Amino acid sequence: MISLCVDSCTVGQSSFSSRSHTCGELCSSHIDEEVTLCGWIQYLRQDLFVILRDFSGLVQILIPQDESKSELKNAFLGLTLESVSMVKGRVRRRPEGQENKKMSTGEIEVCAESLEVLNTCRKLPFEIKDFVKKSEALRMQYRYLDLRSPRMQYNLRLRSQMVMKMREYLCNLHGFVDVETPTLFKRTPGGAKEFVVPSGDPGKFYCLPQSPQQFKQLLMVAGIDRYFQLARCYRDEGSKPDRQPEFTQVDIEISFVDQAGVKSLIEGLINVPFPSMTYEEAMRDYGVDKPDTRFGMKLVDVTTAFQGTQIEFIKDALLKPSGCIQAICVPEGTVRTESGDSDSCPNTATEPTAYRLLSDTAKQQLLQMAQANAGDLIFITAGPRENACPLLGKLRLQCAELLESYGVPVRDPSVFHFLWVVDFPLFLPKEDNPEMLKAAHHPFTAPVPEDAHLLYTQPRKVRGQHYDLVLNGCEVGGGSIHPLCPFFSVLLVIRDVIAFPKSFRGHDLMSPAPDFVSEEDLKLYHISVVWPSADIEGHRPVSWPPCCEHSFV
Amino acid sequence: MISLCVDSCTVGQSSFSSRSHTCGELCSSHIDEEVTLCGWIQYLRQDLFVILRDFSGLVQILIPQDESKSELKNAFLGLTLESVSMVKGRVRRRPEGQENKKMSTGEIEVCAESLEVLNTCRKLPFEIKDFVKKSEALRMQYRYLDLRSPRMQYNLRLRSQMVMKMREYLCNLHGFVDVETPTLFKRTPGGAKEFVVPSGDPGKFYCLPQSPQQFKQLLMVAGIDRYFQLARCYRDEGSKPDRQPEFTQVDIEISFVDQAGVKSLIEGLINVPFPSMTYEEAMRDYGVDKPDTRFGMKLVDVTTAFQGTQIEFIKDALLKPSGCIQAICVPEGTVRTESGDSDSCPNTATEPTAYRLLSDTAKQQLLQMAQANAGDLIFITAGPRENACPLLGKLRLQCAELLESYGVPVRDPSVFHFLWVVDFPLFLPKEDNPEMLKAAHHPFTAPVPEDAHLLYTQPRKVRGQHYDLVLNGCEVGGGSIHPLCPFFSVLLVIRDVIAFPKSFRGHDLMSPAPDFVSEEDLKLYHISVVWPSADIEGHRPVSWPPCCEHSFV
Repeated sequence: MISLCVDSCTVGQSSFSSRSHTCGELCSSHIDEEVTLCGWIQYLRQDLFVILRDFSGLVQILIPQDESKSELKNAFLGLTLESVSMVKGRVRRRPEGQENKKMSTGEIEVCAESLEVLNTCRKLPFEIKDFVKKSEALRMQYRYLDLRSPRMQYNLRLRSQMVMKMREYLCNLHGFVDVETPTLFKRTPGGAKEFVVPSGDPGKFYCLPQSPQQFKQLLMVAGIDRYFQLARCYRDEGSKPDRQPEFTQVDIEISFVDQAGVKSLIEGLINVPFPSMTYEEAMRDYGVDKPDTRFGMKLVDVTTAFQGTQIEFIKDALLKPSGCIQAICVPEGTVRTESGDSDSCPNTATEPTAYRLLSDTAKQQLLQMAQANAGDLIFITAGPRENACPLLGKLRLQCAELLESYGVPVRDPSVFHFLWVVDFPLFLPKEDNPEMLKAAHHPFTAPVPEDAHLLYTQPRKVRGQHYDLVLNGCEVGGGSIHPLCPFFSVLLVIRDVIAFPKSFRGHDLMSPAPDFVSEEDLKLYHISVVWPSADIEGHRPVSWPPCCEHSFV
Repeated sequence: MISLCVDSCTVGQSSFSSRSHTCGELCSSHIDEEVTLCGWIQYLRQDLFVILRDFSGLVQILIPQDESKSELKNAFLGLTLESVSMVKGRVRRRPEGQENKKMSTGEIEVCAESLEVLNTCRKLPFEIKDFVKKSEALRMQYRYLDLRSPRMQYNLRLRSQMVMKMREYLCNLHGFVDVETPTLFKRTPGGAKEFVVPSGDPGKFYCLPQSPQQFKQLLMVAGIDRYFQLARCYRDEGSKPDRQPEFTQVDIEISFVDQAGVKSLIEGLINVPFPSMTYEEAMRDYGVDKPDTRFGMKLVDVTTAFQGTQIEFIKDALLKPSGCIQAICVPEGTVRTESGDSDSCPNTATEPTAYRLLSDTAKQQLLQMAQANAGDLIFITAGPRENACPLLGKLRLQCAELLESYGVPVRDPSVFHFLWVVDFPLFLPKEDNPEMLKAAHHPFTAPVPEDAHLLYTQPRKVRGQHYDLVLNGCEVGGGSIHPLCPFFSVLLVIRDVIAFPKSFRGHDLMSPAPDFVSEEDLKLYHISVVWPSADIEGHRPVSWPPCCEHSFV
């Protein structure tokens, strides 16, 4: 749906620089030009060629072969891979038959006239081109080498350009003001996931905020009526996988606007209009409030096929309040997967007996409702709607994974399905006590005006002015209208392309961080470590004063 | 030298919005148009007019007076100041003689047709327009009200636009890549000013970095050869005035470039070529390496006027190595200031006897060298050059302050004197042991190539490839060339316009932060507070468990 490309030719990539051109931009229009290139030695070939690389691509350098230039030739032959080098030379067309159509610079080569090695690279423990094959941990440890890969070079540049286009849209086109808010802040009451930062005042701590929420609302109060910020946020999630302890979000707030206005704002930001779906539709068709709409296998209510059934567990389920039968149909599921695979899906019990117990009419009705063909696999769940749908929603995603593991393409990783999910309920039942209600999002979400009269009589039916932005099944943004004032906030999380990410335990494997700090340094902040009572010897820095050991439990 | 203005008309300030126009943009070309305005009630006048304010300016609203609209009139008269309101109406030309030329919208007024109060403001403890007269502490406590002032509205918008222009220049014109680097990092050895952040691993801490120095060099190694970032930096300076514990710097690094290249880069960034001055010239003429060139009163070497003098303390000073006499001349200094004022300058002793002891020829020579006229005041210092110049440099700034306190304009606050200071010495004497040398900046600064041969014989004469960017006497940037590789780094500190600054003790007076954190919360991070031994009762939260008190000293 969205295509993004990294511009590298339209900007002055060589301004201020010793180089005259980048490696990747050279083509037949440069033939006969004198060029100066700076880059990294990718490889040497047949003692004849050196391939030089910079961020823009590769170019072939021809090593001079005549006797008078033997010194230059030897300098080239002495190069180690990945050494940083500056090459001057003249561009020429490659001899006929030697063109390389797979290489963007494959029509030309550069006849070297001089070489300056700016920095020699010692032998690496592995070649850069093999790097992607190495373990994640090793790549993180040598992240600065991993970042040399074309993939990461592309990703970092793409992110930079996407963010720049967002800024131009917000700042230049729509008058938003980029305001930085503090990250050394006060602890939020109940803010259990906030990192603390001890200050020089005994016993007093700053906190690293989870979002600039409070400051941006103060900015609205302060009359900065269109605010945005790429805000660094912090959340101590312990060792949850795929969570970074620090991440950046595009934080936007605008006064004097309605829901339609914010939607056009965000769609303009991402440069494409998105479809909308209500929370109820999402739960009904996908069993989840952030559906991945790249593939079908939608939930179908097949309750009517089981009317008057004698199957016990289904009969029981239908007697409960909001009891229903839900189904998904996995196309060619019986062919594609092996018997027993369904066991690998948690919460799934195969009940082939149930199907056999159905009347022929009911079987026919079920197959028709689920639009099943021969070879398809049908999963059904029976129970109260609020349990049956989410369970089948999870199963739908597990089936997609399973099919993909057999090589069946289900979710195209190259497409972006953005989706607004709207009309969320204002309240949801509490997990631990479903009779009680809690705010579905945050307590400052305004109700949809036409539902406001139901607030005290039928609160479960009240919809809130909240919406989520969903991308390929992930929540990437959200916003809500506040009840007293027409403020609107939108949050857009971008965390796919980070130069130096932390491991899933929150560790920086390169530096490494976090690390021990001396007792002396901690004294400045009036804090001391409380060591866990057992098995601590190995974790403790050598200089740790043993007299402190018994003071804490 | 530089003029900057905040664009507010060229961008879509009302897109997506309930308003049709901003208050400040209305003029005679809008006459007869129906408009919708959103803003804050500035004041009511004569029960006839309401002045509505938004970030763009003020506009006069005419309250309808005819009987049929008494309800609307009463709604206007019931408004409290600073209430957030939406007004619809028609623009008309003000009756002749009622124009206000001081007001940008002074030719027109809006005949109100409807009023919606979006949020009622309770009575404020003070009026917004009086806010600037209040104490700094009170303004910080109510920062969200302080930010409503035209001055702060302008400053925040100016900063946003300046930063946007820098980004466009770097990213769009010169192919720089905006890369974010982590702020949860490892402690730098000897990094005494780094805040620590306890992690979930017992005894292990992240640190908040003072700059992205290490990461940006890794990015160069990684082949991101043009990097920039508006980087949040942290420095725990305790309670140094005018230092923020967190601040933002424009951090730039570029490979394959020389000093001239970086200078044009930075001058293009700030859109003006700057004059250069060598370190030696700066110390000679201003007694400081970051001279404020907005005013004269330069240092003059008057040693020759004292040749053969019999004044004891001057004779002694001249006998020492590099002994000299330096002078500054304060124009009309004796007229402008009162007797005894020079006492208020520390390190200054008035020695009127010295002048009387001079021969007539020497007096004449001194007055001529200092270019002094009748009524001017001359300060002199005698001693080794490396002491005499800095001392007089400080005195020069103190004199400027003193003159300004008498209402004499010396330093124009509206002009920007940028200046490159170049040719810094590579080494400076250590403060505690002047026989020893230390790196003047950081140990990775390369020497100027033509001085490299002096490194082992006359190290004090070696200049480094380092330079500072100075603005009105403050160091606002700096860069250096590294010795082994052609990397270049430039640092530009912007910290004048911060929405929510900390007090000079590092406190957020609004929230307030830092604050106490419960023992329970600290347990998650395996730390405990070490209370100072005396006078701690008042500082301790009530819930603090007394059993911990005796555990620490």
